[in-house]
Amino acid sequence: MIHDFVYDIPVRVYFGRDQLQHLGAELKKYGTRVLMTYGGGSIKRMGLYDRVVKEIRDAGLELFELPGIEPNPRIDSVRRGAQMCKDHHIDVLLAVGGGSTIDATKFIAAGACVDHDPWDFLDPAKRGTVSVDKALPIIDILTLAATGSEMDSGGVISNPETQDKYGALYPLLLPKVSFLDPTNTFTVSPYQTACGAADMMSHILEVYFNMDQDMYMLDCFMEGLMKTIIRYAPIAMREPENYEARANLMWTSSWAINGFVNGGKRLAWSCHPMEHELSAIYDITHGLGLAILTPRWMQYCLDETNVSKYVQLGTNVFGINPGQEPMAIARQTIDAMSQFLFGTLGLKRTLPEVGIDETHFAVMARKSVGGDVLQGFKPLRQHDVEQIYRMCME
Amino acid sequence: MIHDFVYDIPVRVYFGRDQLQHLGAELKKYGTRVLMTYGGGSIKRMGLYDRVVKEIRDAGLELFELPGIEPNPRIDSVRRGAQMCKDHHIDVLLAVGGGSTIDATKFIAAGACVDHDPWDFLDPAKRGTVSVDKALPIIDILTLAATGSEMDSGGVISNPETQDKYGALYPLLLPKVSFLDPTNTFTVSPYQTACGAADMMSHILEVYFNMDQDMYMLDCFMEGLMKTIIRYAPIAMREPENYEARANLMWTSSWAINGFVNGGKRLAWSCHPMEHELSAIYDITHGLGLAILTPRWMQYCLDETNVSKYVQLGTNVFGINPGQEPMAIARQTIDAMSQFLFGTLGLKRTLPEVGIDETHFAVMARKSVGGDVLQGFKPLRQHDVEQIYRMCME
Repeated sequence: MIHDFVYDIPVRVYFGRDQLQHLGAELKKYGTRVLMTYGGGSIKRMGLYDRVVKEIRDAGLELFELPGIEPNPRIDSVRRGAQMCKDHHIDVLLAVGGGSTIDATKFIAAGACVDHDPWDFLDPAKRGTVSVDKALPIIDILTLAATGSEMDSGGVISNPETQDKYGALYPLLLPKVSFLDPTNTFTVSPYQTACGAADMMSHILEVYFNMDQDMYMLDCFMEGLMKTIIRYAPIAMREPENYEARANLMWTSSWAINGFVNGGKRLAWSCHPMEHELSAIYDITHGLGLAILTPRWMQYCLDETNVSKYVQLGTNVFGINPGQEPMAIARQTIDAMSQFLFGTLGLKRTLPEVGIDETHFAVMARKSVGGDVLQGFKPLRQHDVEQIYRMCME
Repeated sequence: MIHDFVYDIPVRVYFGRDQLQHLGAELKKYGTRVLMTYGGGSIKRMGLYDRVVKEIRDAGLELFELPGIEPNPRIDSVRRGAQMCKDHHIDVLLAVGGGSTIDATKFIAAGACVDHDPWDFLDPAKRGTVSVDKALPIIDILTLAATGSEMDSGGVISNPETQDKYGALYPLLLPKVSFLDPTNTFTVSPYQTACGAADMMSHILEVYFNMDQDMYMLDCFMEGLMKTIIRYAPIAMREPENYEARANLMWTSSWAINGFVNGGKRLAWSCHPMEHELSAIYDITHGLGLAILTPRWMQYCLDETNVSKYVQLGTNVFGINPGQEPMAIARQTIDAMSQFLFGTLGLKRTLPEVGIDETHFAVMARKSVGGDVLQGFKPLRQHDVEQIYRMCME
């Protein structure tokens, strides 16, 4: 059945090449003291840093900076940012970067308003008692099409001390305004473009692979998003300054995970929890970990009760001939997905190729199922997840 | 090229069967004095009126009522509502009905905050000097899947004295909250269901038929919406209480016109301005007028420069064999659209069948092009529009 749901995404998106002129006015709505967060030096090399600083100065705002947010952002950066907000009485946060920078900024925004450790917002042991009741407003300038953090209320943070990596969603962490300029992704390498495409693809599959009957219109939309990724990711890899390709990928990254596609489905994700354990310990790129896991997970879950979903994906997205046995179509669908991820996108196919061996499989599998069962397209227990990890060995 | 655009749709949508429990709390956010607007007696017959009144009373709010909003709503109802808001110091408007009720309520919300005639917000002669700078907040409960007024900032109002019918968009007229319960459309007749489907189809086609290169992902989305209408409108006509069909149609009505599909296209609509002149004079159902015009307009506009769009529609939405000459595919596409509108939906095919003859063609055509040219998929002058009207005679 189609369950009731609430749709509520009040993010204003400025999309296009010539939108930063609105940055100063948008920031000013929330105050005068701005903390700008970013990662490494890429935004300086591409000239974006200078442009942003100029807009902020021209608007008469006071600028503070927190550089050095890591890929797979760490709780220490969050703690440092939250402390800066308190020390400097920050009014509004400006995240300039990809999903890692925006994710970290979300928990900085929440951490700035409380006395306790921001890790409490993420730690499953604390989440029953801790909530985000207040947060500083967030504006972001996106530089990587991948995680969709620019239009959702969630984030994922790593804690290297405990080798934990957790995600959490809080409505107050939704950005107020996102600036999506496809030209800001022109310098993204082919490899990172591929990882971003794999991440978006996984976001859609986590929702699409669901036997809960829901709305056909949303399945059509998800199929369109997947066709968009398949069409434009290779173009963006070959021609990094192809605006049409970058624009399609960027807007797709937002809509893959902003919640619209969920509709009234009861959701539980599978590949993301399994991948978070990989990147928590080995610090690999999230999209790459997802790419390795996805076809194996598809293969492990396939059975007579869910084969129709594989057939739908194969015929509607990959153009597989529908005049065959369902199981044959399903196998061709998994092959087509592998071919896209490892052939077209050129991502590594196995865990050993990215330096991961069986050492931690048992503990990672146990953590990924939360000690019991990973509810998702098909319920997975620890031994199931271990088996999927093992399928990624070759 | 893909033009810059702003995406900003901060409407909260409660979708589903069991959501009215949130009505009182949502109204209370905006004050205590509620003006409820509605049309004829259908909301009383279906029990919705009693349920809404109970929620309002239980929330301790004060209720005022404006019944009798017409299909093709008239400026007199808007004037009356605006005056009621002033007289009773209304804090928030609650529209219960279809697009007509919600459209009228939008201009009541604006008219309540000014001293001038609300028609000035619509009259093209005044619109350069008049704007909506303030409006009462609007909450709606939708009972008809058609116009998309529940998630956009526009409305269309008729002025029978002058035989004018104008639409206008003002961001402040966007509803704050929309309640979309598919069961509230169970009593919609097969005929009105068909008219609603034709209206939605036209909203999509007005955007889809555009040679301005834009985003593939949005074309895919529009194709999914059209496939949804084609799949579920006949089911809803046959089985009025089919929840899956009503839910898909309802959510599609919102997304067909809330602005998401526009992306960065330069837009100008064609069929809607032509139809508004028909229903301004003859008061026919908007969706029916659109259905009659649409295939003729498609046929009139077809040429070698735009045939690719017809081919895209035909092959992706109607499943027409792509291995043919483009012009042949285009003609089959127009036939398939006619078959859907006049065959599957059973709508009347010609203007004479709905009581319209050639008497006013010249004046209607002149008004529809705004005195000069109707920019759209293909620019249309008065003689073009007259020709299209004439094609609807048989």
